[in-house]
Amino acid sequence: MKRLVIIGADAAGMSAASEARRADPALEIIAYDRGGYASYSQCGLPYWIGGVVDDREKLIARTVAEFAKQTITVNLHHEVTAIDPARGEIHVHDRAGDREFTTPYDALLIATGATPVRPQVPGLDLDGVFVLDVMEDALAIREYISRHAPRRAVIVGGGYIGLELAENLVERGIETRIVQRSDQLFGIIDRELAERINTTLAGHGVNLDLCDTVVESCVGATGRVDHVHTAAGKLPADLVILAVGILPAVSLAAPAGIALGTTGAIAVDRQQRTNLSDHYAAGDCAEVWHRLLQRPVWAALGTIANKQGRVAGRVIAGGEATYGDVVGTAITRVFDLEIGRVGLTEREAEAEGFDIVAATLDSTDHAGYMPDARDLTVKLVAERGSGRLLGGQVLGQAGVAQRVDVLATALYAELTLEGLTRLDLAYAPPFNSVYDPIQVAATSLLRKGL
Amino acid sequence: MKRLVIIGADAAGMSAASEARRADPALEIIAYDRGGYASYSQCGLPYWIGGVVDDREKLIARTVAEFAKQTITVNLHHEVTAIDPARGEIHVHDRAGDREFTTPYDALLIATGATPVRPQVPGLDLDGVFVLDVMEDALAIREYISRHAPRRAVIVGGGYIGLELAENLVERGIETRIVQRSDQLFGIIDRELAERINTTLAGHGVNLDLCDTVVESCVGATGRVDHVHTAAGKLPADLVILAVGILPAVSLAAPAGIALGTTGAIAVDRQQRTNLSDHYAAGDCAEVWHRLLQRPVWAALGTIANKQGRVAGRVIAGGEATYGDVVGTAITRVFDLEIGRVGLTEREAEAEGFDIVAATLDSTDHAGYMPDARDLTVKLVAERGSGRLLGGQVLGQAGVAQRVDVLATALYAELTLEGLTRLDLAYAPPFNSVYDPIQVAATSLLRKGL
Repeated sequence: MKRLVIIGADAAGMSAASEARRADPALEIIAYDRGGYASYSQCGLPYWIGGVVDDREKLIARTVAEFAKQTITVNLHHEVTAIDPARGEIHVHDRAGDREFTTPYDALLIATGATPVRPQVPGLDLDGVFVLDVMEDALAIREYISRHAPRRAVIVGGGYIGLELAENLVERGIETRIVQRSDQLFGIIDRELAERINTTLAGHGVNLDLCDTVVESCVGATGRVDHVHTAAGKLPADLVILAVGILPAVSLAAPAGIALGTTGAIAVDRQQRTNLSDHYAAGDCAEVWHRLLQRPVWAALGTIANKQGRVAGRVIAGGEATYGDVVGTAITRVFDLEIGRVGLTEREAEAEGFDIVAATLDSTDHAGYMPDARDLTVKLVAERGSGRLLGGQVLGQAGVAQRVDVLATALYAELTLEGLTRLDLAYAPPFNSVYDPIQVAATSLLRKGL
Repeated sequence: MKRLVIIGADAAGMSAASEARRADPALEIIAYDRGGYASYSQCGLPYWIGGVVDDREKLIARTVAEFAKQTITVNLHHEVTAIDPARGEIHVHDRAGDREFTTPYDALLIATGATPVRPQVPGLDLDGVFVLDVMEDALAIREYISRHAPRRAVIVGGGYIGLELAENLVERGIETRIVQRSDQLFGIIDRELAERINTTLAGHGVNLDLCDTVVESCVGATGRVDHVHTAAGKLPADLVILAVGILPAVSLAAPAGIALGTTGAIAVDRQQRTNLSDHYAAGDCAEVWHRLLQRPVWAALGTIANKQGRVAGRVIAGGEATYGDVVGTAITRVFDLEIGRVGLTEREAEAEGFDIVAATLDSTDHAGYMPDARDLTVKLVAERGSGRLLGGQVLGQAGVAQRVDVLATALYAELTLEGLTRLDLAYAPPFNSVYDPIQVAATSLLRKGL
């Protein structure tokens, strides 16, 4: 009987396990995870911290007991410490039982995810200083908030996690400040649009220290943080959360001779195979093919992890599956501002050497005469000459996902601006205008001339 | 100087006028409309009746004065009574000045829209009995409601207009009943899904008399309606609105030798040309090409009218433009139920002779663990064997337009179910689940086997 071992029991790993089981009832499937939770929504953690999600059980897609019913063994609190491809075995530290052992595999799936960057500054070990990574971190933050009722939080970093945390800490009544090295929050959209995030945050009382503001140390006399030092001065804070970025977790793969790509994540083919036969990788630790750039990129997102896991599971079980690619889709919400992007931003497209045209349109999410119409801004980027759609950014108070998903579908189908104007999109006054804002933006670009 | 005459100054006609002006500053452009309003949102009328839209000026996209600034002449209250293609002139009745005249054209655009079906039953001339067609009808209904504060309304017909009116009359505090000949409301979706509309209406206190219930007469002793007779009996009603359907308004075109298609609407090519040179048609009076059926259909919708008008205007002005096609997209809302469709329903696909597979999925519009997640149901129809997407229906309390528009884009791009599963759609807990419900439905169909 063939034996599949999976390192990492979250989105990619457990998607693979389920799909492999579906494809091959006889396969032995064993997953190891150093943490205490399997198969939960990491993306939901900020909302659980904020109390928007009230029950952490709801974040768990499938329990260890449910996997057991599928004869998938999930070993929690088991840290894999090394991979030995030559022998086809892994070294495991059972953290609960405090014992080491090795175990063999016929096929190995590396689904180790990403690791948060931990800046090297003094005071990170103080009580009240956190990195939000796994469920245990969220539990610790929520418990800390319950116990100490912190009044002032500093969030270090203004990406997804930083922004979502800001909303959720404000939801908890905590005065919140975001501190960030660069002068633009949410660096994956163009600068002029990102400024609306600053305005939204300010409108909800979030303080911002952008531009060269680096936390130099966390300080607290009693073992608990009470302020941070930055280049700009001293900031009072009895809660500090670091969200300065993540890196692919490849510390097991790399020493085992599993090749990394230029992005630093594990290089995989469309069947999630690595350079070593019978060794697969999926999820945040692996690269993914970018449809527009026609090269691998690193994009650590739950959607990709789930899909790659499913492909890996089917292929390992002897089935056929191919992972497609990404078009750079991302979305988040900060208070009442929805922010989405797809394809390439203007800045990214220029950096890639595309000759582009771009237009930004301020509109409403549905018929402007309806009382609940909300502001919506669309920016489109297209290739000069051909009119090929290269990307879109959408910001507004409602209807952002709708436009981002149309654009993501259009990018998948390699539509031009002309194609966008021809789409037969749904119209009724509560849902849209006669021309969708992306069609108006596309028409405006076409009228300017390509 | 070339002279363009347009019959009908609404969506198609005035889109054509604006686009023709954009393409040719010298063209003489004159539009005639028998009504008193140009270029307004007919789709907004139910919401204006309901008071959701408070100011009727908001429904007007562009005023006659604004058109005049573009040197586009709009003659309201001017009814065109005949077209004489041989002489290249139209006969006009100036209703305000009560005079008749003829006027020549070099190019003629017929944008006469659709006409509501008026059943031949006694009592339609009673006060309180209305057909909702143009702005004047909406004004009359709203004024009647203000003056008489009707307590009980009967809406005859359960299509778009009937449903939207029901919502808006209930909004006005009027006890509302829908009476309909067939046993299914909103016949453009499959029966089992349409039943949810009945439930929603009942939940909001709307009475339903479906199945062979035809209004046989409207009755009122004092000149004002106080009840209607149906096959099922006598129903008290001091407001009756007929919304039993519409037909293409071709009473000018047909006698002039302008060819109709098999649908009964004016046959046009992709440049909106009719069979007579220099004679064009656009909007609800014209046919439109259906991408899946690969033949013309009649689909009277604002989006199509605007787009066809724009194409006609550009072509008439000597420019290049081609109208694409439709994929059968439609959406509406009834209270808290959003209802959308695209492509072919299961019933339609079967009637067209397609060998199909279909699946229905009950899900939520975004991550189920979020407190504001709402029910969402997706039904997909695909071609057996090839897996080509043929259509989708989406019902739910939120997020319907988002899925309908993705499916509309996918149909335009001729994607298969496999293609749907590969889309890189936007995910974050407030917006979606890791797999969009349409992807889950597509996967479920693929797993069943094509």
